[in-house]
Amino acid sequence: MKTVSIAGVVAFGLLSLGAAPAAPPSMTDILAASPHGDWRPLDPSNLLILQLPAGRVTIELAPAFAPQAVANIKALVRAHYFDGSFVVRAQDNYVVQWARGEGHGEPHTLGGAKAKIPAEFDRSATGLAFTSLADPDTYAPQTGFAGGFPVARDPAHDRAWLTHCYGMVGVGRDVAADSGNGSELYAVIGQSPRNLDRNVTLVGRVVDGIERFSVLPRGTAALGFYAKPEQRIPIASIRLASDIPAAERPKFEALRTDSKTFATLLQERRMRPDPWYKNAPGHIGVCNMPLPVRAKS
Amino acid sequence: MKTVSIAGVVAFGLLSLGAAPAAPPSMTDILAASPHGDWRPLDPSNLLILQLPAGRVTIELAPAFAPQAVANIKALVRAHYFDGSFVVRAQDNYVVQWARGEGHGEPHTLGGAKAKIPAEFDRSATGLAFTSLADPDTYAPQTGFAGGFPVARDPAHDRAWLTHCYGMVGVGRDVAADSGNGSELYAVIGQSPRNLDRNVTLVGRVVDGIERFSVLPRGTAALGFYAKPEQRIPIASIRLASDIPAAERPKFEALRTDSKTFATLLQERRMRPDPWYKNAPGHIGVCNMPLPVRAKS
Repeated sequence: MKTVSIAGVVAFGLLSLGAAPAAPPSMTDILAASPHGDWRPLDPSNLLILQLPAGRVTIELAPAFAPQAVANIKALVRAHYFDGSFVVRAQDNYVVQWARGEGHGEPHTLGGAKAKIPAEFDRSATGLAFTSLADPDTYAPQTGFAGGFPVARDPAHDRAWLTHCYGMVGVGRDVAADSGNGSELYAVIGQSPRNLDRNVTLVGRVVDGIERFSVLPRGTAALGFYAKPEQRIPIASIRLASDIPAAERPKFEALRTDSKTFATLLQERRMRPDPWYKNAPGHIGVCNMPLPVRAKS
Repeated sequence: MKTVSIAGVVAFGLLSLGAAPAAPPSMTDILAASPHGDWRPLDPSNLLILQLPAGRVTIELAPAFAPQAVANIKALVRAHYFDGSFVVRAQDNYVVQWARGEGHGEPHTLGGAKAKIPAEFDRSATGLAFTSLADPDTYAPQTGFAGGFPVARDPAHDRAWLTHCYGMVGVGRDVAADSGNGSELYAVIGQSPRNLDRNVTLVGRVVDGIERFSVLPRGTAALGFYAKPEQRIPIASIRLASDIPAAERPKFEALRTDSKTFATLLQERRMRPDPWYKNAPGHIGVCNMPLPVRAKS
């Protein structure tokens, strides 16, 4: 009796890496062939390093979209506000959230940060270099990429905003639009909750280590909060990369979303020309496009 | 210095539960008010129970979409094919995959299952009770729900197919369309990889315990495969619920996707009338709609 096991090749297929010799260029091929100038080094003054027991999570901040929230988060980080905070919530297919105070560890001074800042749910689309996607989006008139981030745009109203894709980081808030100040943050670990777009100030994206969030045990209390204090995941520190010694900084570079290589990759991801695909998707969603980040050599 | 921590209320906000006394009905309210007839008991002859060290994962099979693959999987299960198999792959924001043989544990007879079955990537849309969504989809002409599953439809060509949403279960395959026989399966644990639609035979959906998959340590070898055999997650058994004693069966019921309660919930999820939302999404995607399942009383 024949047994069938096809893990390796299936895996190739699922990822469309095109193992056959005559296969068209894969994502790996396209990135390997990219010129140096199609990559941008990640600015250490916009990189947060969050230290979990399992290792680092690195977040790129997006001051072009949320200048006041990003400035406030940097002030909180410089006051060491998050050192001794916790991941207090992990809700499956939704978010992990981190905080301190009010039952989540010791309170802490805000340092130079403001207790109250305005909401930054969207911004003017004017002046934003925007790489548009051709395919329809369920939630927005247009979607695409700007400065390395997934973005939606409403040209009729001259607005643009970051979209809630996997790994995006946002500012938790109360019912009032301006009730979040950056002292409580979350990251998306499931299907893109695009309903939150323009309802939360998004401040950046996890560029490395998202799996350190996404494998965390799910909380069993309502909304995925941890039921017992000892279940919370301690955050030893959050630091700006520019505030730590150069030798300890993560050195990443990201594929420029306005580069030729990105356009080539977008087309490959949209059409999937490799022979594993029997029905070329012919479309791609803003949260389905990989945004490659690699160690800077 | 004021410290700000708003976890509880933020959580409400993020989930739109509407804590205020005058709030419109929440998802919880809508489900609590639903008549008994809006729920359907899950048929034990279409329920797989997969036993992981951390507990059960329950999968509802979809014979209306993949009759031959579902029949083959049932035959494999009855041959105890998966007892002693492993989760061999956990790729972040993508899939977990389980298998046996060819380096993934001992081979096993296929029992009464066929070594080869045809691909079932889509079916005729005729005769399919379909609850359509009003909003555009990136990948398909229409999306909606049928028999409790997320579905896409192409009326011009009379085709319908299951969509790759979070928790959907599919048949791994090699390059040939008909190279998967159900002996290697995967479940989606990240952003819906809709590019796989109509490229893989989808056979069902995890209706309980998806978090037992989604928290698994990510594999560090290529494509999220576990690098060492001892990292694989053992699957003690997979059984059909109808093949185990009635007292041990999971007893679930699912909200009928053709019910009035589902229509009400869909509208609530689409419009988010509660005061936390400052910009009502006004749209909903097929993979963003919850498909409620609860313990049967």
